[in-house]
Amino acid sequence: MDKDIRAGEIAAALPQAFDAGLYFVGRLRTPWATRAECPHYGALDGPLCRIEIDDRWRPALLGLEGREFLQVLYFMHQARRDLLVQTPRTRAAPSGTFAIRSPVRPNPIALSRVRLEKVENGVLFVRGLDCIDGTPLVDIKPDR
Amino acid sequence: MDKDIRAGEIAAALPQAFDAGLYFVGRLRTPWATRAECPHYGALDGPLCRIEIDDRWRPALLGLEGREFLQVLYFMHQARRDLLVQTPRTRAAPSGTFAIRSPVRPNPIALSRVRLEKVENGVLFVRGLDCIDGTPLVDIKPDR
Repeated sequence: MDKDIRAGEIAAALPQAFDAGLYFVGRLRTPWATRAECPHYGALDGPLCRIEIDDRWRPALLGLEGREFLQVLYFMHQARRDLLVQTPRTRAAPSGTFAIRSPVRPNPIALSRVRLEKVENGVLFVRGLDCIDGTPLVDIKPDR
Repeated sequence: MDKDIRAGEIAAALPQAFDAGLYFVGRLRTPWATRAECPHYGALDGPLCRIEIDDRWRPALLGLEGREFLQVLYFMHQARRDLLVQTPRTRAAPSGTFAIRSPVRPNPIALSRVRLEKVENGVLFVRGLDCIDGTPLVDIKPDR
């Protein structure tokens, strides 16, 4: 993982231990193999992607089918976690991590709103994702 | 933590280990001491609440002031994690965990959209939270 620092960036010393743990409950299958290929934002009329739910958690899908919009929480497992102030390539000036939606953050959890097309054998077919193929799934919630 | 099962509910055997870890980066200060007192949904004209950021992470607030709406991710530390199908008190029939917004879920991360009123010494003053006082903070993002 990249540990370089660009001009204006500030890195934290990360804590010695985590405060809580996450279970990965599935993974996101998208057309993008690298971060460079990913769209900046997912589009609700973008390519059809799949959300594969691991066997253990499939009963939790009961009643999901028929909902039009979902919130998908996933873990950006390739992102470093120590930058407090960062200068993404798309920005001229450094920004505080909590003031931008960069994947680089203390807890690299991303959130996408997606359109649900169908559910088949524990697989959700959706549009609106923007992450790399194989990204671990953390949660699915109905959109408000 | 409650381990009872109501009619129609299904519990999972949880995995032996976590797949990733979370750092708690602060805590939410609200007027509600117990879950029974919490509103069902946070209101953007609800009571003023505070988000206290721990010292280590405060530089990450750079540039946040002046934004009107934020997304706040927090960890519902009192919720059990093993229910796949559940029957919340407010519902007649059992629902799959991914089909409802109950705090009980494999990864009990909640998301609120809040209105930012001001930032003072690493403390954000916001309206729109709905969780108990002392809830651990996971992330802050600007709303899209």
